Amino acid sequence: MKNMIAKIASVALTAGIAQTSFAIPPAPMPTPDEQAIDAATKDMFAWDIIQGLTTEVGPRLAGTEAEARARRWAAFKLPAMGFANVRIEPYKMQTWVRGEETAEVLQPYPQKLIVTALGNSGSTGKAAIQGEVVYFANLQALQAAPVGSVKGKIVFVSHNMKPAQDGSGYGPFGQVRRIGPNIAAKMGATAIIIRSIGTDNHRVPHTGNTNFEKSVTPIPAAALSIPDADNLVRMFATNAPVQIKLILTPKFVGETESGNVIAEVPGNNPKLPPIIIACHLDSWDLGTGAIDDAAGCGIIAAAAKHLRDTGPRLRTIRILWAGAEEVGGFGGKAYAEAHKTEPHGLAMESDFGADRVWRVDFKLPESAKALQTKIADRFAYLGIQTGKAEAGGGTDVEPIIEAQHLSVIDLQQDGTHYFDLHHTADDTLDKIDLKQLQQNVTAWTVVLMNVANYEGDLSLAPKP
Amino acid sequence: MKNMIAKIASVALTAGIAQTSFAIPPAPMPTPDEQAIDAATKDMFAWDIIQGLTTEVGPRLAGTEAEARARRWAAFKLPAMGFANVRIEPYKMQTWVRGEETAEVLQPYPQKLIVTALGNSGSTGKAAIQGEVVYFANLQALQAAPVGSVKGKIVFVSHNMKPAQDGSGYGPFGQVRRIGPNIAAKMGATAIIIRSIGTDNHRVPHTGNTNFEKSVTPIPAAALSIPDADNLVRMFATNAPVQIKLILTPKFVGETESGNVIAEVPGNNPKLPPIIIACHLDSWDLGTGAIDDAAGCGIIAAAAKHLRDTGPRLRTIRILWAGAEEVGGFGGKAYAEAHKTEPHGLAMESDFGADRVWRVDFKLPESAKALQTKIADRFAYLGIQTGKAEAGGGTDVEPIIEAQHLSVIDLQQDGTHYFDLHHTADDTLDKIDLKQLQQNVTAWTVVLMNVANYEGDLSLAPKP
Repeated sequence: MKNMIAKIASVALTAGIAQTSFAIPPAPMPTPDEQAIDAATKDMFAWDIIQGLTTEVGPRLAGTEAEARARRWAAFKLPAMGFANVRIEPYKMQTWVRGEETAEVLQPYPQKLIVTALGNSGSTGKAAIQGEVVYFANLQALQAAPVGSVKGKIVFVSHNMKPAQDGSGYGPFGQVRRIGPNIAAKMGATAIIIRSIGTDNHRVPHTGNTNFEKSVTPIPAAALSIPDADNLVRMFATNAPVQIKLILTPKFVGETESGNVIAEVPGNNPKLPPIIIACHLDSWDLGTGAIDDAAGCGIIAAAAKHLRDTGPRLRTIRILWAGAEEVGGFGGKAYAEAHKTEPHGLAMESDFGADRVWRVDFKLPESAKALQTKIADRFAYLGIQTGKAEAGGGTDVEPIIEAQHLSVIDLQQDGTHYFDLHHTADDTLDKIDLKQLQQNVTAWTVVLMNVANYEGDLSLAPKP
Repeated sequence: MKNMIAKIASVALTAGIAQTSFAIPPAPMPTPDEQAIDAATKDMFAWDIIQGLTTEVGPRLAGTEAEARARRWAAFKLPAMGFANVRIEPYKMQTWVRGEETAEVLQPYPQKLIVTALGNSGSTGKAAIQGEVVYFANLQALQAAPVGSVKGKIVFVSHNMKPAQDGSGYGPFGQVRRIGPNIAAKMGATAIIIRSIGTDNHRVPHTGNTNFEKSVTPIPAAALSIPDADNLVRMFATNAPVQIKLILTPKFVGETESGNVIAEVPGNNPKLPPIIIACHLDSWDLGTGAIDDAAGCGIIAAAAKHLRDTGPRLRTIRILWAGAEEVGGFGGKAYAEAHKTEPHGLAMESDFGADRVWRVDFKLPESAKALQTKIADRFAYLGIQTGKAEAGGGTDVEPIIEAQHLSVIDLQQDGTHYFDLHHTADDTLDKIDLKQLQQNVTAWTVVLMNVANYEGDLSLAPKP
């Protein structure tokens, strides 16, 4: 037989025909890891979750009935995907809801403006606020304004935020929204309008939370769409006094219920603390929360699903679909409080859209160097670089990370286009790119398969 | 001296140095044509007009006070640019204005929808219409629906319009908007919502006129933003009954004044009929009408300005900034009626945004072949091809073209992105690309300089 095969092979070779298929041993069965990665590259679970949340629930503002529907949707969906120990963990919160919102320029060039109230904004009442507008090119200019200069007036603050791949403009420029209203209120302004914290050029203003000190009475605070802000700046360039009329009627509806949804892929070794992976289930009320953050919930659940489908690993993967992230991270805080006595091994979060993972950051003990190298090496094949920053998690896992000094891995997503959509009505399903979403699921699957079987100690010493 | 120059040149040549500058005669004075083209390539007049109209007037719905402000703005601006015989020619029209507009899905997946009323839409009244929605994938499906199938229901019609460089999708797919509501009303529907006639993916619905037959009572008719239409289609895919609630309270306010603004660059030879060049001054009320059609007004006036600044030509160039184009072409009709006894030489219009001219179409007498060739040859240098279609003008000049069998030249603009913005709140100044706008002004200047000095007869025989 050997001779015969050799003879045939020799003939095939001589004839120049590649008759070699029978001479190659059959491919080995793919390992569970290979299977999981292969499935992740073609993943449709993440898309299915994003489509479901955006279509079957839609906008899901924290503390509202819509967010409760999202929890019920999740509590039905996650067991159907094969996850274990699915449960809703409720908590109470003070809930703010949007009202009517209109604005118009009265002078010098009468026309409507498109605005949206910031979370925690005060109300103008139905009767509208009307008055002179004082323009500041940025927050620093407002902060430098003389005492009394905006008293009884409406403040308009612009800024110069530009897109950045790592989303790093949001920290500094986002301060216009986060603290601008409180500063204007303390200076005696009757209301504040800001250039949307965003990078698009559409008539879709960006909402988002603002915060007033307890001693400060909230004033009406709204974001203008970016083309509207541009238009207003052009009006100021004429040096004519600018007057606007503003109606915003948001309100606090009192204490309502919110909640976290938890699901697990149980591990084989109950002595190894679980890996906690998080996203948030609530969204702002203007869009359907596709990139923020149905995408994150889809990505982490899909990766956990691929891991699960290839058989059990050592550590439990715990999925946290947190509530009320947008309005103050109440879900993450509630989770940390409820689970403070359970040890955790490592925390991760996905909450920056659905564009590709381009960088990985770590915060691991020195002893886990080999784990880090293994992930980084595998990521190099996927075009994902290793960053130099220390991983930090995100709003939903920060409280438990802080309480337990947890290890963290951050899969940093490309944020170049994120602030085109963030907190706007435009945050809808059609903005998700399937290929990039699948790359996220693949990267997450790679990390989970490595950390779920990691037997070493992942705990970090408390920071001095 | 000759010898010396020859010697120096020879030495320079030998030394390999290009010492030839003193041997070249001084550049001749640029011709008026060259001056005009050079100025057009750097034009800022068009931008200035678009910025002025969008900032200092803003939205300017036909028949409203805002459109009247636009006329006053124009009547101030055009003489300031040096144009002669500037005048407002008023006429009366029936005026429709937008009211409140909200929509929400009640079943199966409660959430808000973003809608806007179509021009001439009926009103739901403050009390809202609520009811089952019947979905049709396109207008043909609605037309084929059995008698009685939509009686007492709300019709939803989608379509499959895609971008096209020549904008050719708007004719057939736009029928959903133009005649869909009338068809649904005749079938006994209580209201109709359509997928916006557009090609974007933003939460900015596209308005536009619809028309009801005189014998048909207008029903409430609105456009959904494209992401909202997508969402609704996904809900229908679940086969669950879909119910919505719709409030639209537009109304007719009766007869009001609209008007055309006219300005001229007088020619030297009063025996040669003028060239009429048009755009429209009115806009829809959602955006500030930058691409539709402040851009057209900017382009034609800027080109006429460059021609004017180089000295008089033979024929008069008459600029028509027409009123009330969007709502029925009333300005163009009023112009044709008011000027029916005056001869015209040629008509042109700019009303397709501000992206580059990529093609030129002609409708000229056989005797003007040389003129056509001259323009086409010059355009070849600008990368503008000659089309095979017959030029048609546009809504503002069609009535006078038809009445007087006028010659026409169409400078076709690239419409690939036009229907991303058309008739939406997103039609704002920031969407104008200065370089492409300047290319438009250059192309128009080239045509005007050729036709303004054309002494031949431009009249066409009436079509049989």
